[in-house]
Amino acid sequence: MRKVGIIGLGHVGATLAYTLVTENVVDELVLIDKDEKRAISEEYDLLDAQVFLTGKTKIIIQDYQALKDASVIVFCAGQISALGDDGDRFKELEITSKIVEETAPKIKQSGFDGIIITITNPCDVIAAYMQKQTGFETTKVFGTGTMLDTARMQQAVSRNVSIDSRNVGGYVYGEHGDSQFVAWSTVTIGDRPLLTWDSELDLNQLDEAVRAGGWNAFAGKGYTSYGIATCGARLIRMILNDAKTIVPVSAYDDQMDSYYGQPVVIGKNGIESFISCPLTEKEQNSLKESVQIIKDGLANLPFKQ
Amino acid sequence: MRKVGIIGLGHVGATLAYTLVTENVVDELVLIDKDEKRAISEEYDLLDAQVFLTGKTKIIIQDYQALKDASVIVFCAGQISALGDDGDRFKELEITSKIVEETAPKIKQSGFDGIIITITNPCDVIAAYMQKQTGFETTKVFGTGTMLDTARMQQAVSRNVSIDSRNVGGYVYGEHGDSQFVAWSTVTIGDRPLLTWDSELDLNQLDEAVRAGGWNAFAGKGYTSYGIATCGARLIRMILNDAKTIVPVSAYDDQMDSYYGQPVVIGKNGIESFISCPLTEKEQNSLKESVQIIKDGLANLPFKQ
Amino acid sequence: MRKVGIIGLGHVGATLAYTLVTENVVDELVLIDKDEKRAISEEYDLLDAQVFLTGKTKIIIQDYQALKDASVIVFCAGQISALGDDGDRFKELEITSKIVEETAPKIKQSGFDGIIITITNPCDVIAAYMQKQTGFETTKVFGTGTMLDTARMQQAVSRNVSIDSRNVGGYVYGEHGDSQFVAWSTVTIGDRPLLTWDSELDLNQLDEAVRAGGWNAFAGKGYTSYGIATCGARLIRMILNDAKTIVPVSAYDDQMDSYYGQPVVIGKNGIESFISCPLTEKEQNSLKESVQIIKDGLANLPFKQ
Amino acid sequence: MRKVGIIGLGHVGATLAYTLVTENVVDELVLIDKDEKRAISEEYDLLDAQVFLTGKTKIIIQDYQALKDASVIVFCAGQISALGDDGDRFKELEITSKIVEETAPKIKQSGFDGIIITITNPCDVIAAYMQKQTGFETTKVFGTGTMLDTARMQQAVSRNVSIDSRNVGGYVYGEHGDSQFVAWSTVTIGDRPLLTWDSELDLNQLDEAVRAGGWNAFAGKGYTSYGIATCGARLIRMILNDAKTIVPVSAYDDQMDSYYGQPVVIGKNGIESFISCPLTEKEQNSLKESVQIIKDGLANLPFKQ
Repeated sequence: MRKVGIIGLGHVGATLAYTLVTENVVDELVLIDKDEKRAISEEYDLLDAQVFLTGKTKIIIQDYQALKDASVIVFCAGQISALGDDGDRFKELEITSKIVEETAPKIKQSGFDGIIITITNPCDVIAAYMQKQTGFETTKVFGTGTMLDTARMQQAVSRNVSIDSRNVGGYVYGEHGDSQFVAWSTVTIGDRPLLTWDSELDLNQLDEAVRAGGWNAFAGKGYTSYGIATCGARLIRMILNDAKTIVPVSAYDDQMDSYYGQPVVIGKNGIESFISCPLTEKEQNSLKESVQIIKDGLANLPFKQ
Repeated sequence: MRKVGIIGLGHVGATLAYTLVTENVVDELVLIDKDEKRAISEEYDLLDAQVFLTGKTKIIIQDYQALKDASVIVFCAGQISALGDDGDRFKELEITSKIVEETAPKIKQSGFDGIIITITNPCDVIAAYMQKQTGFETTKVFGTGTMLDTARMQQAVSRNVSIDSRNVGGYVYGEHGDSQFVAWSTVTIGDRPLLTWDSELDLNQLDEAVRAGGWNAFAGKGYTSYGIATCGARLIRMILNDAKTIVPVSAYDDQMDSYYGQPVVIGKNGIESFISCPLTEKEQNSLKESVQIIKDGLANLPFKQ
Repeated sequence: MRKVGIIGLGHVGATLAYTLVTENVVDELVLIDKDEKRAISEEYDLLDAQVFLTGKTKIIIQDYQALKDASVIVFCAGQISALGDDGDRFKELEITSKIVEETAPKIKQSGFDGIIITITNPCDVIAAYMQKQTGFETTKVFGTGTMLDTARMQQAVSRNVSIDSRNVGGYVYGEHGDSQFVAWSTVTIGDRPLLTWDSELDLNQLDEAVRAGGWNAFAGKGYTSYGIATCGARLIRMILNDAKTIVPVSAYDDQMDSYYGQPVVIGKNGIESFISCPLTEKEQNSLKESVQIIKDGLANLPFKQ
Repeated sequence: MRKVGIIGLGHVGATLAYTLVTENVVDELVLIDKDEKRAISEEYDLLDAQVFLTGKTKIIIQDYQALKDASVIVFCAGQISALGDDGDRFKELEITSKIVEETAPKIKQSGFDGIIITITNPCDVIAAYMQKQTGFETTKVFGTGTMLDTARMQQAVSRNVSIDSRNVGGYVYGEHGDSQFVAWSTVTIGDRPLLTWDSELDLNQLDEAVRAGGWNAFAGKGYTSYGIATCGARLIRMILNDAKTIVPVSAYDDQMDSYYGQPVVIGKNGIESFISCPLTEKEQNSLKESVQIIKDGLANLPFKQ
C-alpha cells in the first residue's frame, strides 16, 4: 500500500491531495488540519471526485497514528495571511516555526519512519527546523526549495525561445526566496548550454522574466497552488517509484552546514546523492550570500531548538 | 485542436482548469474572469504546473474572441458569498442572472457555436436562462444539475454497503437544490436493484446520508470544488470524445417545459437523447414539485428575458 | 512498494506488462518466462518505453524468489498453438495443466503470500487447478473468467443501442468458453433493465453479436491481447487499491463446489464477497450445465492432484 | 476531433494503436492493413479494452477516405521477416519501398493534408522516399529515426550511473541503423555534460552498452514494439498539442540534402525548426559517413521515383 500523509490543508495541501487522488498516486491518504471541519470537507469533496475517476484512494483524516506506516509526509501547514504584501516569506516564520514545534513530536510519536517533504515557508528554514525538531536523518527531510522556482525559470526561458519548457534544463540555487538566483551556467535548451544558444538572449531580462513569472502567479490570488502541488506530487512519485531523479530541492549540505536549493537525486531513501555542478565564481558567491540568509533565519529563531 | 473555454475563475472554474491541464483534456484553454489579475495568476500557475506534466495545454486569457472555435464553454461565474448560510442556492440568483445577461451577448458575438455547460447556481435556472439569453438550441446548453448529487448518492450508498461507488448506479432527479430527490427505484448496486439488495437498507437513512454527504463537503470550506471540477472535466471529455455516455444533468425537457436533472446521453452534439426511467408515482410527484420550483425561479427573474 | 509478478510472456503476459508500465500501476514488476531471451527482450523494450513516460517501474526478470513480497501474481503461461482451429480452449488443458504443476511449487517455495490471477486457458479449470496445486485459500486464487466476455457483451449491446459501453451493466456467467451465457436478466443500460429497454431488441441476435465480437477479435490474429491485458491491469489496480469493485471473474463457489464466472467483490484480500443476482430458472439451468463442463474438465485431468 | 491514422498493423502499428487508445490520445483512429481480417481483429480487441478505460476512441478500419481530415498518419507497414538475421534493416528496403509506392498515391488521393511519421525500415530512406512519392513538404514528413536509439542511449547511461533515464540528455545522430553514433559531446546527466561527469565513464563501453541494449530488446522476440510505440505516441501528442518539443527524429536537412536523425523542434506543423549542436570534428565526420549510407540507399532504389 502506498500511503502518504499531508499536514496542513490550505490551498497547497488541499490541491496536493486532489492531485494525488486524481492521478491515483497513493492507495491511502492521511489528511490532517488544525480545523477538523476543513479536513472533513476535503475528505467528502475528494470522495465525490472519485466517483468519476478510475483509481481509488482511501482517505483517512485527523489521525496522526495512521502516519505510522506512511512512506511520505508532506508538511504544508502555514498561514498565508502572515505573508507580507511584499511577498516576504520570512514574515511567516514566527508562526510556522511554532507549528513545526507542535507537529514534530506528533510525527515522531506516531512511529513514522519515512521521508518528510516540507513546503511551508520560509521553506529552507522550515525544512532545517523540521529536521532538528524530529531528529530524523538530514537525507530524510527536505524542502521543495527551488524546484518551483526552477520550473518558473524553465517557463520563462521557454516563453522566450518558443521551445517546450520540458526541454529547458538547469537550476535555480539557494533560498526559496528573494536571494535565490538562476545559475545560468547550468541552464540548457535541448541539452545545449543556453549561454551558447543565441547571443541575443539577455540574461538580465530573463532574470527579470523569472521573477515576474513568480510574481504573476502569486499576485492575482494571493497564493499559488497548482505549480507547487504538481511539484509535490512529482516528488512523492519519485520516492514511491524509487526513481533516482535529479531535481533541485532544499537539502542539507554538510560542507556549508545548511539547507538550500540545489540539485540532488531523489529515490526511496529521500536524498540519495548530490549533483555538483561547476558553478561560476559569481554564482558561488551568490550561493554563499543566499545560504547565509537561510542560516541567519534559522539562528534567529526565537524558539529553543 | 481541442479547445475549451471557462468563464469564471472562482474555486470551481480554477480547479476545473487545473484538472483539464493535469489530464491534458484539451490543447487550448481559454480562461476568462471579471478580475484580470486573477486570470493572469491562474495562467502562470498552470504554466508552472505544466513543467512537471507530460501533455501541453496552451492557455489564453481574457479573450472572448478566442472562444469562436472552442467546442465547449463552461460557465461557472458566480459569487459564493451570495449563498446564504443555510446553503440556499436561490439567494445567488439575483447576482448570477445578471452575469448571464452580461455574458451571453459576448458569447454570441464571438461566433461560438459549441456546447455550453453551466455550473453557476441556482444551476437549473441559470442553465435555462443562459439558453434563453443566447438563443442556442436547448440540446446545446445544459447544467451539471444533479450529476454531482448523484455522485454523492453513489458515495453514500457505497459507504453503507462497502462496495466501490462506481458500482452504484441510478439517479438523483430534479433541482440541483433542496427539492432534489434520489429516485431509489433507479438505484442499483452491481447492476442489481438496490430495493432487492438487502431488507435492512433504510432508505430514509440513506436519504439522510446523501444530504449529509453534500453538507459535509460544503460546510468546512464554504464551497466545494474537487467533486464538481472532476464532474465538469468528465462532461467535457464525453463531448470531445463523442462518448454517448448516460449521465444525469440539467437538460431541457419539452414535455415539462423546463430544465431539470435527469439522465441523458451526452455526445459531441451535447444532449443527444433522453433516458426515460419508469419512476414510481411518488417519484413522479416529487419530480413535478421540484420542477415547479425551477420554473418559479425562472419566472420570478426580475430581469427582462 | 507495489510489486506484481507475471508468469508467461506470450501476447497476453507481455501486453499486460506493457500496460502496467505505461500506466505506472506498479513500482516493481517481476517477469518470468520459460524462454529467458524472451524475458530479456521484454525487459529492455519496456525500459526503452519508460524514457518517454512519467512513472518508473523497476523490471526484475526470471527470479521466482523476487515474488516473495509481491502482492499479485498473474499466471498467463500457455501455448496458443495448442488451441484448436475452432477456438476450443479445452485442447490447451493437457499442456497448461502441466505448466501449473511445474509452476505452483515454485510459487509456494518463493514464500509468496498474495493473490494469484490466472488467465491461462481453459481459464476456470486452470484457476481451480492452480488453487489445488498451491493449496492457497480459494479467495486468493481466481481466474479472469467471464470478465472479458462481459466486456464483449457490453460492447455488443453498446453498438446496438449507440450508448457508451460503460453504461451497459450485467454479467456473462459460467465457463470462459462455449457454454458461457449472458444472463440477460442482469443486463442494464443506463441502470435500466435491458429487458424493459426496447421491445425491438432481439436477445438471440444480441447473443449472436456477443459471440461474433469475441470471434472477430480472435480470428484475424489468432489470439487476443488488448482487451484481456486491460482487464488484467484493472483487476490488479482493484487489489492494490483495495477497491471493493464488483466484477465477474472465475471464483470458487462452495455451494456448487466449482470455479466459474460470476460477479464478486474484489479487494486487497482477493475475492471479498459474492454478489448473488436473482437469475431466471432458464439462466440457473444454463449455469448448472456450464459448471458441469468445468467440473468435468477438472475431474478428467490426467494428472494426479 | 483529434484524428490519427495508422497504416500497417504489425507489432509496431498495433501496439501504437493500443497505446493511443489506452492513453486516449485521439478521438478517432483509422487503422489500415493489407490484411482486412487483421484490422477487424485489432478493432474488436481495442473496443473490448475500452470497456475498462475512461476515454473513448472511435475506431475506423480500412478506409483511406477517412484519412482526409486526420492530423497525423503513422506509416509502419513492413515485413519484419525481410529483416536479416543480422538485424540489417536495409534488407527490408526492396519490400518496404514498394509498399511506399503503393501507399503514397492513396494517401494523396484521400485529400490528407497533415503530418506523416514513418517508422518502417530502413527508416531514413523510407521517410525520404515517402516524402518524394507524396510530394509533401519535407517538414511534414519525418521518420522516428534515432529517437528510439537516443532512448536506448539514455537507458544505457542511466543504468551505468544509477540515475533516472529521463535525466539523461543528448542525441544519437545519423542513420537509424548500424552507422548511427552517439554524439557524446551532446550528452548530459542532470544537465551537466557527461564528459565532465566522471573520469571513470568509459565511452567505448557505453557505446557498446547502447548497441547491446538495442540488440537485447530485439533478439529475444525478433522485433521490438513497446519502446517504439511509446515513442510514436509521444510524437503524436507533440503534434496535436503543438508542444514545440525538441527530439531527435529523421528529418530532411537541405544543407546535406538528406534525411537523417538529428534534433528538431516538433509542433503542429511537423518539423518547426532545427537544433544545431556544435558537434566535434570526429562527430561531424561520423555524421557525413552515416548520411552517405542513407543517400546511397535512396539512390540505389530500384524503383522509378
